[in-house]
Parts: sequence; C-alpha cells; structure tokens
Amino acid sequence: MKNMIKIADFTDYAQEVLPKEVFEYFSGGAGEEITLRENEKIYDQIKLNYRVLKGIDEIDLNTTILGQKIDLPVIIAPMAFHKLAHPDGELGTARATSLLSTIMIVSTFSTQTLESIKSISKIPPWFQLYIFQDRAITKELVMMAEACGYKALVLTVDTPVYGTREKEIRNNFDLAEGLILENLITAGFKLPKDFIGNKSKHFSSLLDNNITWADIEWLRSITKIPIILKGIMDKRDFLIAKELSIAAVIISNHGGRQLDTVPTSIEILQKNIDFIDKSIEIIIDGGIRKGSDIFKALALGAKAVLVGRPILWGLAVNGEAGVYNILNILKSDLEKTMKLCGCSRVDEINKEFLFR
Amino acid sequence: MKNMIKIADFTDYAQEVLPKEVFEYFSGGAGEEITLRENEKIYDQIKLNYRVLKGIDEIDLNTTILGQKIDLPVIIAPMAFHKLAHPDGELGTARATSLLSTIMIVSTFSTQTLESIKSISKIPPWFQLYIFQDRAITKELVMMAEACGYKALVLTVDTPVYGTREKEIRNNFDLAEGLILENLITAGFKLPKDFIGNKSKHFSSLLDNNITWADIEWLRSITKIPIILKGIMDKRDFLIAKELSIAAVIISNHGGRQLDTVPTSIEILQKNIDFIDKSIEIIIDGGIRKGSDIFKALALGAKAVLVGRPILWGLAVNGEAGVYNILNILKSDLEKTMKLCGCSRVDEINKEFLFR
Amino acid sequence: MKNMIKIADFTDYAQEVLPKEVFEYFSGGAGEEITLRENEKIYDQIKLNYRVLKGIDEIDLNTTILGQKIDLPVIIAPMAFHKLAHPDGELGTARATSLLSTIMIVSTFSTQTLESIKSISKIPPWFQLYIFQDRAITKELVMMAEACGYKALVLTVDTPVYGTREKEIRNNFDLAEGLILENLITAGFKLPKDFIGNKSKHFSSLLDNNITWADIEWLRSITKIPIILKGIMDKRDFLIAKELSIAAVIISNHGGRQLDTVPTSIEILQKNIDFIDKSIEIIIDGGIRKGSDIFKALALGAKAVLVGRPILWGLAVNGEAGVYNILNILKSDLEKTMKLCGCSRVDEINKEFLFR
Amino acid sequence: MKNMIKIADFTDYAQEVLPKEVFEYFSGGAGEEITLRENEKIYDQIKLNYRVLKGIDEIDLNTTILGQKIDLPVIIAPMAFHKLAHPDGELGTARATSLLSTIMIVSTFSTQTLESIKSISKIPPWFQLYIFQDRAITKELVMMAEACGYKALVLTVDTPVYGTREKEIRNNFDLAEGLILENLITAGFKLPKDFIGNKSKHFSSLLDNNITWADIEWLRSITKIPIILKGIMDKRDFLIAKELSIAAVIISNHGGRQLDTVPTSIEILQKNIDFIDKSIEIIIDGGIRKGSDIFKALALGAKAVLVGRPILWGLAVNGEAGVYNILNILKSDLEKTMKLCGCSRVDEINKEFLFR
Repeated sequence: MKNMIKIADFTDYAQEVLPKEVFEYFSGGAGEEITLRENEKIYDQIKLNYRVLKGIDEIDLNTTILGQKIDLPVIIAPMAFHKLAHPDGELGTARATSLLSTIMIVSTFSTQTLESIKSISKIPPWFQLYIFQDRAITKELVMMAEACGYKALVLTVDTPVYGTREKEIRNNFDLAEGLILENLITAGFKLPKDFIGNKSKHFSSLLDNNITWADIEWLRSITKIPIILKGIMDKRDFLIAKELSIAAVIISNHGGRQLDTVPTSIEILQKNIDFIDKSIEIIIDGGIRKGSDIFKALALGAKAVLVGRPILWGLAVNGEAGVYNILNILKSDLEKTMKLCGCSRVDEINKEFLFR
Repeated sequence: MKNMIKIADFTDYAQEVLPKEVFEYFSGGAGEEITLRENEKIYDQIKLNYRVLKGIDEIDLNTTILGQKIDLPVIIAPMAFHKLAHPDGELGTARATSLLSTIMIVSTFSTQTLESIKSISKIPPWFQLYIFQDRAITKELVMMAEACGYKALVLTVDTPVYGTREKEIRNNFDLAEGLILENLITAGFKLPKDFIGNKSKHFSSLLDNNITWADIEWLRSITKIPIILKGIMDKRDFLIAKELSIAAVIISNHGGRQLDTVPTSIEILQKNIDFIDKSIEIIIDGGIRKGSDIFKALALGAKAVLVGRPILWGLAVNGEAGVYNILNILKSDLEKTMKLCGCSRVDEINKEFLFR
Repeated sequence: MKNMIKIADFTDYAQEVLPKEVFEYFSGGAGEEITLRENEKIYDQIKLNYRVLKGIDEIDLNTTILGQKIDLPVIIAPMAFHKLAHPDGELGTARATSLLSTIMIVSTFSTQTLESIKSISKIPPWFQLYIFQDRAITKELVMMAEACGYKALVLTVDTPVYGTREKEIRNNFDLAEGLILENLITAGFKLPKDFIGNKSKHFSSLLDNNITWADIEWLRSITKIPIILKGIMDKRDFLIAKELSIAAVIISNHGGRQLDTVPTSIEILQKNIDFIDKSIEIIIDGGIRKGSDIFKALALGAKAVLVGRPILWGLAVNGEAGVYNILNILKSDLEKTMKLCGCSRVDEINKEFLFR
Repeated sequence: MKNMIKIADFTDYAQEVLPKEVFEYFSGGAGEEITLRENEKIYDQIKLNYRVLKGIDEIDLNTTILGQKIDLPVIIAPMAFHKLAHPDGELGTARATSLLSTIMIVSTFSTQTLESIKSISKIPPWFQLYIFQDRAITKELVMMAEACGYKALVLTVDTPVYGTREKEIRNNFDLAEGLILENLITAGFKLPKDFIGNKSKHFSSLLDNNITWADIEWLRSITKIPIILKGIMDKRDFLIAKELSIAAVIISNHGGRQLDTVPTSIEILQKNIDFIDKSIEIIIDGGIRKGSDIFKALALGAKAVLVGRPILWGLAVNGEAGVYNILNILKSDLEKTMKLCGCSRVDEINKEFLFR
C-alpha cells in the first residue's frame, strides 16, 4: 500500500477502520498511560554508535530461542481477540508469521482454535496461559496446547488483577456478540449466560488471582514443554526464576496496561541484566516500533523482542497481508540499522553499538 | 455516577457546578502555582517496582496513627468552609469519612460546630488550630475540641502570613454572606461588622502571625491531647520537634497555597526521613490523587497521607455521597496497586517497591 | 490599579500602550533570546527552604551598599531613554525610587540631565558610563556626574560591540525625533546630523569598542568616586577586579541583550561566589520579577539586585506612580517571602534558606 | 534583502520558492528526524564564557586546513544537485565561496563539471567521493579531480546503504528530468535508461555498499592527494584512521539523513577529542546555523566546520548572491561572537570560552 512505510502509518489507518471502542481497547493503557507513552519514548533516548568500512554485505537475522532457529529476532506477542481486529483473526497472524519464519505466541483468549493455528504455523507456536480458578480447565488447556505441538507455555505473571484502563470503562467496552473464545470452549469452560457484556467482571472472577511460585511447580508436573514467565520486574523474582531453572523470561510491563508508572522494559533490562544467569534467555516487550528499537533491545542483552499492537494494526488494515507488511517493515528496518551500524549478524549486536 | 472513575473527573465536574470564584479559591495556589503543579507531577516520576506470584488474596488497609486504628491510611486534610462546596458541609464529609473508618481533621474555620461533627464521627476527629492574637479565644477553641472528644490538635505552622493567591485577588473573592464560622462564634469571637467582604484583611489581623516554639509549650500547658505540627520543612525544625517529643508531623506545603517554589512534600520527606526519629509519625500532604500516590508516599516512609481538594470536589459534586465516592476510588485504587505490586498489608509497603 | 498585582500585569499593559517597536526595543534580547528567557526561568528552579515558628514580627529590608544605607536591596538598573516609555522619563523613575529610599543608576543615554535627576533623588544616584572614543567627552561626563553628587561610576564592560537584536532590526527601530540625549549634549557631544534614524551605526562608531583594564586605571586617575564593573563573567576577570580593588561588581548578561547562550547571572554567581573576596560587593542583574527572586539572589551571595525592564513597564503604564507600584510590589513580595521563610533581616538571608 | 538577517530567514524563503519535494529532499532527515532536530538544538545547550576589557580591535578569521590558508573556518559541505536549488548550481556556490576565500567540497553528484567549478575557485576545492561498484569509473573520477587541481578527496564512509527518508518516499521524490550528473557522464558512467525516476534504486545498486579499510589503501595507491574520511563515530575507527595516518576526519551524522538516533557531531567530538592525535585535523558537520555555533565547535576542538543546507537555502533564494549572503551572515556573526567573547584570532578559541 502506498505511503504505508512505517508502523505509525498502520496505527493511523487502523484507528480509521476499527470501531472506536475496539481501537481504544487495543491501544489503551492503565491509568494516565504514563508507562504506555514511555514505552515508546525510551528508545529514542538511546543513541546508536556505528562502525564504518566494515564491508557488510549480507545481513543475517537468524537467531535461536529455546533451541528453535528463527529467521527474525521478533516474536508475536500474545494478544487476545485477533478477530476483533479482522476476520482473518489469529490464522491471519499465524500465516504472516510463518512467511517470516518466526514464532507466534497464542493467547489463552484467542478467537480461533489452538489446533487450527498450529496446523498452519511453519515454526511451532507458543501458548500464553492464564491460570483459571478451575485447575481442571487450566490443565485441559495445557494438555491441548502440548498435544497439538505448542513448544512453550508463556505464563503471564503480572495480572493478579485486571489493570484500570479508563478508555475501556468510559467506552463501556465489552466483547462483541459472536466472538467465540474457541480454546476455552474446547477445554470445557462453561461461559456464564451474561458473559457478553460483563467481560471484565467474569475475567476477574474466573481467573485465579492468587497464583504463586508453587503453581509453577504444579504446571511443571503436568507438562513437559518449557515454561516462560512473562512480566517479572524485581531482582529477587529473577533470582527465584533462576533457581527454578526457568528457561526464559519475558521482561514486560504488559504494554502499559496493568500498573501505571512502572519502568519500561528497557530500564528493567538494564537494571537486571548483569546478574541474570546466561542460562535464562531474556525476551523484551513493549514499545518496539522500529528496526532500531529491536537493535537497541538486543544490544542491551535481549535475545529477541515481542511485538504486539503493531501486529493488530496490520491485521486491522489488511488481514494477513497487513501483518506481513508490518513484519517486513520491521525486518527491513532492522537490516538497514545493522548495515548502517556495521554489524552483520544478530549475535554480534552488543552494547558497543550504543553511544556512551 | 457514570464515568466518574477518577479524581480528575470530580475536579472537572466541580468546576462546572461551583461558582468560578469558589472553585478557584479551593483549587488555586500561591504565586505562579509552580509548587501547586509539582505537587501532583512528582508522583508520576516515582517508578514502582512490583513483585510477582506472591499469592495475594486479601488486601488489608488497616493502619494505626497516634495509637488509633483506622481502616485506610488516608486522612481528611483540614480545609476551611466545606459549606462553600455543598450544603452538607463538614457533616457530609464527616459521615463519608466514618463510612470508611478513618480520621477527619476539622478546620478552625469549619462552617459547622465541632460538636456536631464529632457526634457523627465513627473515629474521633482531630482539630486543626490557628492561634489567634486573642489567646483567650484560642484557649476556648482548644477546650471545646478537647471537651467534645477530639483526639489531636493539628497546629498549622506555615502561615505567619497569608500566601499571595492571585486568583483570589483577581476574583475579589470573599466569603458568601450567610456562611457562619460556627466555632469562632461559639468560642466568643466577635466578628467585626465588615467581616464579610474583608476576610483576608481580618484573618491577617486576628491571627497571631508571630507564634514561636514557646507557644507549643503554652498549648501543652492547657491541653492533654497530643499536638501535631503541620508544615515543617527544615531539618533543624524537625530536630526541635523531636526534642519536644512532638508525636506527629504533617509534611506539607499547604497545598501550594502559601509560598511558591518550595519543594514538594515528597522531596522534603526524602531529604529528612533518615534522621527523623521513628518516634515521630510522619504524615504527608499535597498532590495525592491516585492509589499509587498513596502507595509511593508510604513506601518513602509516611505513616498516612492527607487528602484535601479531592474531598471538596466530591462534596461539590454530590455532598456526602460524593466524598464517599472519592474515598472509595482512592481505596480501590490503593488496593489494586498493592495487589499488582504483590503487597498485602500497609505495614509491608517499603522502598523496595520503588524502582531504583 | 485594579488587578495590577504582579510584574507581568504591568508587562502586558505596557505592551498595549507602547508602540510595538518601543516595547520590543525594551523587551527584546540578542539572537534567539535563549538567555533572555532563561534569565527568568532559572529562579523557578531554585527551591526555597523555610523555617517555622520563628516569631517574625517586623521585616527589616535595610541594607548597605558601598557604605550607603538603602531601605530595599533593589537598585534601578541603568537603562537608556526612559522618555520613550513615558514623558515622566528618568525624573519619574527617580522620584519613585526616592520614595522607596534606594539607588537609581542613571544611564549615559538618559533623556533628562544628570543634574535634574540628582536634584530630586533622596539617595545619591550612580552614573552608568560608556567610554567614548572621544576621551574628552568621556571625562566631561564623569566630571559632570561627580560634580553634581553621583556616588559611583558603573562601567559597562560587556559591550565591545552592540548585540544582534533581531526585533530592533526587523522593526527598523530608531530613536524618535525629539528625544534628546541631555547628558551627551551637555558634555559637548556633537550629534551627527543623521543621528536620528541611524542610532546603532552611530553608537557603534562613537563608543570605544576596544577598552581595556588600562582604561579602568585612567578612569581612576580622573575621578575619586568608586568604580563598579558591570558584566564580568569569567573567574580570571573577577580576579583582576579583585587585584585592582574594585569595590563592587554587577553580575549581568545585559538582560540577554548582548550575547545569546551565555549563562544566567545566577549561574555565574554560583560558579564564582566562593573565591570572590568579600571585599568586592556583588550585585546581580537579570530576570528579577518576584520577591522570591530577590530573596534567592541574596541567599546565593548577592548584596543587592538590579531591576530593569519592570521599571520601564511601570513607567509606561503610569509614569512615576507606575514605577512606585512596581517597587512596592517587589518590596511587599520580598517581605512576605521573608516572613514565610522565617527570616527577618536582609543580612540573615543565606543559602540555608535554599532547598538542597 | 530586507529582513533576511539570519539563516532561518533563508530557510523560510527557500521553502516558499522551492517545489515541496525539492525542499523536503534537501531539508529532510532519516526516520523520525530526531537526530536532525538535535543537530541544531545541541548548540543552544552549550553556554559561552566571555572575557571582558580585552581591547579586541580587529578580528582575524584566518585559519589553515591541510596546510591551506582560508579566510573563514567554514567550508562548504558536499551536497548533491545544486542545480535543483537554483540554475546557478555549483558554479554559483563556488563563486560565492571564492569571495570569502574558503573551500568548497564538490559532491560526486554535482550538476556541473569538476573542471568548471575548479576553474572559478579562488581556493582549490576538495572532491567528495562515493566508491562505485565499477572501480574503473571510481578511478576515473579520482583522476579527473586530481588532474584539474582538487586538493583533497573526501570519502563518505557512513552510507553503506541509503537512509530511510520518509519525506522522499512520501513525495515519491526523484530527480528532475534534465538534471545532468556531469562528472559521472564525463567519467564514462552509462546512465541506465530508467535512471530518472529510479534514483534511489540505482544509487544503491551502483554504489559499492561494502567498502572497507582496504579500499582506503587502494585509493591511496591511485592518487597522491590526501584522503579525508567523513562520518566516523566510534573510537576504534578513529584509532584505525590514526594508524593509517589519515590527514583529516569530518565528524558528521550526514545531516541526520542516514541513521536516526545517532549522537550529534558535538557529542562525538566531545567523547573522542582527547585521544585523537593532533596530527589528524578534525572538521565538524551538522546543525551549524549561527556564528556562536561555529565558535563552540572550534572551542571544543574542531579546526573548521562544514555548512550544508544553509548554502542551498542561499542558492535557492538568490543564486550566487544568496550563498554570499549566507556566508557573510555566518562570518559577521562569528566576528561579533568573538568580539563579545574577548577573542581575536581563530587559534585562540578554546574551551575556556565555554561555561563549565
């Protein structure tokens, strides 16, 4: 599409085509949206330091995450309700992701089945899990994901309660009728009759808001696929994760949607990177909009980044093709950043490429 | 009320329903209002540091202040003329405060009697005192408060002269006819005939602008209830307060209404917290608008916070019910902040929950 | 006048009543006016630290400068062409200054005679001197000032060339016909026929742009009244001034009118205060608009401040009475600041009254 | 021209007279233009520190660069396509440059011949070189430049790929038909038939994007004129340049046109100045718009500065005469800055003239 040259073009277009309450549900954040805004701004404050005359010919974006080779150090963040953005839904996202040969993390609240998404994915997806009060359903979800070939469980740990998102409240936002939470139904979850129209109430009441590290052990006892923790911030929690031999951690402030005035992922990464054992792979989340953002996150120690909202804007604008555009923009932009920095491979990116 | 989800919604609504000069009397500050604005901004710059997987179920907001158990670490700041905001006046505020089981500080310039306010208060209120040139009236006010059960005297020490509040001057603001300063009358205070219409002149001429530490000793000699000092900033004054075994200090810049370009209470707290004896309880004042603001003040060492203007906005919007809404918003928001931070009790809140 | 409660009110009013090119001549600065703006902003960033319960009754604003007692630590900055602001001219300013019992510095380019200004001044004024290429005229000016009782020569040292003031150039600003430079005429200065309409050209060509420290010695040889240097910034120049036993220095960036992107006087003061010998009295200039500004300058080590543009706004608004208003506003505001800070005398003001 | 008193006046005028896509091609930068904006802003944050009473009479702007005496420490930056700005093209720029007796750097993509430009230049120009995949053409260009008297080769090393300039893409900018790349044609370059309308594609495909330090050695083997490297940022690359006895380096971020969020040249200079061997002359590039900017760059260690876009605005506004105006504005402004700082010769400018 003409003049769709950067992520913000898709954001603007998505805002035009999506109903206001849907756009604001996807784009909004908690509280005054201070953290939401800082997520993007932080990257502009990190300055690059390039090398010259390195004779960089080909850029190689391959990397490995949890032992899986991917062609791009960008992973699709878990997000609920892709069908709200476009009828292609999660399948559209999965197909575009496959064209770039990277990983999609499928949300507990996906609107298409885990199996259908897996079946069209080139690289096995990961499954993002919320633990329900009903552990039988939780276990069923894990079993389903493992059975059809998902290769990791991404447990979101920063949602003991649903963040206060003003726009959702003011818009009286709730799920469109007809939107089906396929996985929950398959897992035997009985939707309360008034579910549509009372989403947040039910979400809060059905999810287990009091999970602990013991639940991580329980999860391990019921599945063999690795567990990734999403949303750790404090040094002491990183140390517990290390002790428990957690394979990977996603540093995230939940896209600024949970607790306002927390630091950006970049700040959390910088504070903790030195003592995190190299055995834990670090993925970073929040505010990635440009190739140079990815480059900077990697330079600071992340193994890969998650991209969230931009995927939904691509989907909203043009379904699968739109997601493909988004991923390609990020890919070319990362390649150009690397070429201009004098860096040819992902594993060469380090903090020497940052100024000061 | 629909869409009244945060304090700022009440502020906006109050601005609509109150006469301009009343709204600006309540909302305005001294000078260029630099300190007034910074009071709120400072909180957004303090970043939270949360823990995960703590299994927080119930949040307990109970705390103890001057030996009194309260259900919420939020106290009603002393403010003059509640009836200017709403006919419910101080009684409305007191009833709402009682529903949340916390403490109200009643102003010397309340528009309803100390006795009537005390009689409907679940937790004994505190009495905010200005010292008059006429010590007999001052003594009478103290006696009245003590007699009807007030449990502390809050002496305001930052008003040797009335701050320059431009909006009051430009609006030619003065007290509405019919507004009765109940306590002063009861105490035998003879209102000059031109009192209405010359408030600031009379306030300046009637209050004692030259009080000293010796007056604290005098107060102690006439009452047995504890004395709290409101408005101390300098380290040397904290040390004098400590020597005099003052029970509690309210760190405050008088809501930015007295001297412009003084620091925020948060900055004063941070500078002085380390050497203040634990025997002095610290309460903090100014700019509290969100649950996370309360949480941050407590994390930095405050035992409780005062909330002022928001109470008046609640009162203006809906009388007693509006105040109740305000307090409930702060309460739920504090609970949510604690849950998201992985902290279940007020006495667990400490600076480890702040980032860096 | 109603609602004329602070300096900015007079600035706004003056902008209404003065011709655009006159207002911009007075208000404008060099280059992008970066220094001009920072002159005012710097004060808002300095935070006050007040004491309480000091029992301050009377505020005493008396101070001594060069051995002269004045009632207010505010001196009138030397400014050209008071008659451009109002027909009262320098005489209006001098009368108002006398009512407050402080010192006026009369410009070389005053539009009324040195003698007439002196004759109505309660406190002997100072004479601001530019050195002309024609030393005879320069000497004559000095002799005239000394003869009629001026008590100091203020030599401006920061104008080896006239600063680039865009607004003057764009307005094609030049002196109104009929405006008479009384002192220059009295001193025997022959105005070129095309003087009106070519001010800056003539100023540049008539003033000596290459004066050196040797000229200070020459000045000393022709007059017994003390010499004050206005516009020193560098440590090495302060040291030379000290060696030469200069009595006082005015730290100034010429109101932001000469060289853009120099520091504010406050920054220069802070950098140099520690090594300046106490024998040199420091006066500070630029951006003083509030009582707290004066207080902060004194707290950082200045003996007095100059006030410039506000005087012209007072003059423009209401002649002598307007200047009196301006000085009174500053006086009351300083008194209130001192009372609120717990400080009763000018010589008690020190850096303990600043926060951090 | 009336009211054309600073560079920004020419920028505004140029924006009026040039076609939008041409103005934006010249003025635009890479990405979000963060670096582009900071290039100018950085200078306003550097504060000057002036001396007084130095008796500065004449200002001498002479300096020497690569052994060549020039009358002004300002060199014309290499820029493509001067004829897009004005029919006078590079010849207009060269004539104006000659009037000020300084050096012009002629771009590989100049629209007039190297020979014609050289023939009217008072001081021998330098030739900016891109290395083509076709080394024969590259060699031919170098030979041509050397043969007709160019005195240095400026090799641009920061363009392994063309930066993403949104405005060019959105404007679908491409070269006007009729614009002739004289040097390339002379060198035997065969323009592809679809060259017009596919500039960036062809530029990328024809230039050698993979040059290395070995190419520097190759260049040396084919020419005797000194090689200057333009666009080095990293300390290690400065050290290599030192080892290779490179005569001069131009610190530059390519006018913010290549990689967004890199530091300004001033920051790179400050970081590296201390260890760069005095044998390498440092020239600085980017954001120079005022005499004080030049002064600050020199104070921080640069031997001269390049000026780019302002030259094109001068050219657009009034051809050769406009360029002359631009250079004269910078010259007078630098002279005034030096006079006001108390500094008479270019080689006296040092960091003592900066505040703190």
